[in-house]
Amino acid sequence: MPTAYITVPVDEADELARALVEERLAACVNAVECNSVYRWRGEIHDDEEKILFAKTTDERYDDLQTYVERHHPAEVPCIERFDEDDELSAFAEWCDGSVGTDEERS
Amino acid sequence: MPTAYITVPVDEADELARALVEERLAACVNAVECNSVYRWRGEIHDDEEKILFAKTTDERYDDLQTYVERHHPAEVPCIERFDEDDELSAFAEWCDGSVGTDEERS
Amino acid sequence: MPTAYITVPVDEADELARALVEERLAACVNAVECNSVYRWRGEIHDDEEKILFAKTTDERYDDLQTYVERHHPAEVPCIERFDEDDELSAFAEWCDGSVGTDEERS
Repeated sequence: MPTAYITVPVDEADELARALVEERLAACVNAVECNSVYRWRGEIHDDEEKILFAKTTDERYDDLQTYVERHHPAEVPCIERFDEDDELSAFAEWCDGSVGTDEERS
Repeated sequence: MPTAYITVPVDEADELARALVEERLAACVNAVECNSVYRWRGEIHDDEEKILFAKTTDERYDDLQTYVERHHPAEVPCIERFDEDDELSAFAEWCDGSVGTDEERS
Repeated sequence: MPTAYITVPVDEADELARALVEERLAACVNAVECNSVYRWRGEIHDDEEKILFAKTTDERYDDLQTYVERHHPAEVPCIERFDEDDELSAFAEWCDGSVGTDEERS
């Protein structure tokens, strides 16, 4: 099962996290405060952001990425996919049941 | 070497992190504050939790998962396994020496 | 593309994060506060640290690891590599352009 690793400006993070769950694109999102150091147009920035660890399924990952691209304020957002090597089966089942379209879940 | 990714209610996280190290199920645990957004029985929740990144070995992973299942307050805890693609060899050796039963380490 | 997972004492983390970007060893670094529980010489410690998630490239990973080893205060630092399974292509291109030597980028 994939985890999407997404960084978002701190004041827009919770709204995006909630939307991913409301839209059934992620079963859950763990949002972590961080400071992000990066170079942009020759200058080094140090911004307050949040990392969103969004738990989803193979079937929903591409839709999740498309949604984040459309709703993210940055020109080039950090959206990465990490697949677990194993997980508690009950957690995997719960995730499956928490995402997907109505037809997929009926 | 595996990293276990575990989410726990914030007020129970440090106790579990310490127990995993005391029981030699993890060499070290990095505990990170987060807010977790998820849907449970039709309602969206936003809870204060901690992510525990628990560093362990192949041999100890299943015991670690069993221990967390037994001591976790949630009905369906988030317990996931991520294997590194590489690590500093001295760190790997230290981890090996920090977990395992007395016989394994003698 | 690899992510380096590095833990550092909290008061030395931002300096190392900034140096990795300045030296073009990482395109960006997300620095997260954590408490680290571990056993060292028979005693259990609980230290305030930061996890640095440093985004880099295959070509630069070994140089990044060598740099961190040289500048890290710990005898055995935690330096681990996690490769993504996928990422937004625009982000990957931006990372490529942000690291590497002058010749590599000319």
